[in-house]
Amino acid sequence: MKVLKTVDEVKKLSNQWKKEGKTVGLVPTMGYLHEGHMSLIERCRKENDKVIVSIFVNPAQFGENEDLDAYPKDFEKDKALCEKAGADLIFNPDTSEMYSNPRTYVNIDGLSDYLCGKSRPIHFRGVCTVVSKLFIITKPDNAYFGQKDAQQLAIIKKMVKDLNFDVNIVGCPIVREEDGLAKSSRNVYLNAKERKAALCLSKAITAGKLLANSETDADKVKNEMIKIIEAEPLAKIDYVEIVDNETMQPVSEIKDNTLAAMAVYIGKARLLDNFIKEGKN
Amino acid sequence: MKVLKTVDEVKKLSNQWKKEGKTVGLVPTMGYLHEGHMSLIERCRKENDKVIVSIFVNPAQFGENEDLDAYPKDFEKDKALCEKAGADLIFNPDTSEMYSNPRTYVNIDGLSDYLCGKSRPIHFRGVCTVVSKLFIITKPDNAYFGQKDAQQLAIIKKMVKDLNFDVNIVGCPIVREEDGLAKSSRNVYLNAKERKAALCLSKAITAGKLLANSETDADKVKNEMIKIIEAEPLAKIDYVEIVDNETMQPVSEIKDNTLAAMAVYIGKARLLDNFIKEGKN
Repeated sequence: MKVLKTVDEVKKLSNQWKKEGKTVGLVPTMGYLHEGHMSLIERCRKENDKVIVSIFVNPAQFGENEDLDAYPKDFEKDKALCEKAGADLIFNPDTSEMYSNPRTYVNIDGLSDYLCGKSRPIHFRGVCTVVSKLFIITKPDNAYFGQKDAQQLAIIKKMVKDLNFDVNIVGCPIVREEDGLAKSSRNVYLNAKERKAALCLSKAITAGKLLANSETDADKVKNEMIKIIEAEPLAKIDYVEIVDNETMQPVSEIKDNTLAAMAVYIGKARLLDNFIKEGKN
Repeated sequence: MKVLKTVDEVKKLSNQWKKEGKTVGLVPTMGYLHEGHMSLIERCRKENDKVIVSIFVNPAQFGENEDLDAYPKDFEKDKALCEKAGADLIFNPDTSEMYSNPRTYVNIDGLSDYLCGKSRPIHFRGVCTVVSKLFIITKPDNAYFGQKDAQQLAIIKKMVKDLNFDVNIVGCPIVREEDGLAKSSRNVYLNAKERKAALCLSKAITAGKLLANSETDADKVKNEMIKIIEAEPLAKIDYVEIVDNETMQPVSEIKDNTLAAMAVYIGKARLLDNFIKEGKN
């Protein structure tokens, strides 16, 4: 497994792979890898000749008062995990290698105004910009994203379609701790008490999903989920919304491909969870 | 020479060319080709194994009250000219092929706020978006743009750097009519009287360029150019500015790589002209 830090080196290698007729898979990450990431890398390993994992904490997707500086890092552990999962290349650029007095941004209207985009206004602009750059640099046939970041996944799919990228976007199921908490690099922010409180997210998801089997009224399902979270004193809701999984627009009726998504603060950790109607998640 | 109308057909062909190790050159145009475009296609022909000319009047770069509907078209003539210049492929998509409920835009901050961007606020967003799409679809090694659209050229260069596109951007000199008027598809809007009046642009450019050989005070050169245009009753200045050719920021002192650029209305035609200090143009 190679570790490369410059755009030019990665371009050279991916161009060589493409010339040899190899399929290339990309797993874009911000590092501090957990089993959620591992499931992406393992699936990528199965479906591609060459596996690239990018590890880059992308400043462009963090707002001014967010956790850019605190974001957890452990490159040596990440490296061992990538090696174990059979990655061929880690692309681990410095910020200055990715952004040199940048002025160009890839932005998406509409899909980014709701949910996470509401409380993190420049977040998806940063995501779309860095993912575009990674696609242009690594030229993947397939790229793997977690369903936990449901809005990100929907946005990336639309971006790929709009800009004509030759990349197949693969969404992978949420991976959970044994007690149900969705795996996230940000779970490390939780102290013991908060870790327990954080279970209200997956409880609300489980209850909402169950109710949505028989109930099509989105407000009723949403209120049921909100009730469960509000019962937890350490939880502060950022949003709980029921939307179309493609357009991210709120819906009043739950049907196939309806997404129920939430962001909830537990202490200083902002955690996400969601389900899609029809057992796709 | 092939004419293709769909993204998938063009991708297939350009992928095949890349696999065969051919170099690919792209000349993006809005059609109604003139000698300015021809100079780009001819240079592209000399420097690449395969030459793609795109002909697409890009609605995303026109504002609401601009000349999208009036923009001149003559595909059969364009086709004959491309054939004559040795193009291998014309990519001539319909609007619906390029934009299907689009939400993703490539935008550039800073460089697009001045000059043409001031009177055409969404123009360069449309240019960056369509050029990104064309780069992703056609995968050119080299892409050719006219120096007449100096700000567009500077913006595309910065976009390529920021997004890591593998495309070498080639700027080509302004091509002029015998009497000095810069060639433009929009010259067709001019009636006989306006055609004569339009010479004030190139006269101002010639005078400004001459003065800039001895005068480094940008205001003095700018005022000399403005004086010449204001002497023409049919001319209405949109802007005359002296800026850094890379950042598009106004400068007070003229030096190497300083750009003097103008947009002037003659009747309903908005015409551009410019020069770069140091005989690069």
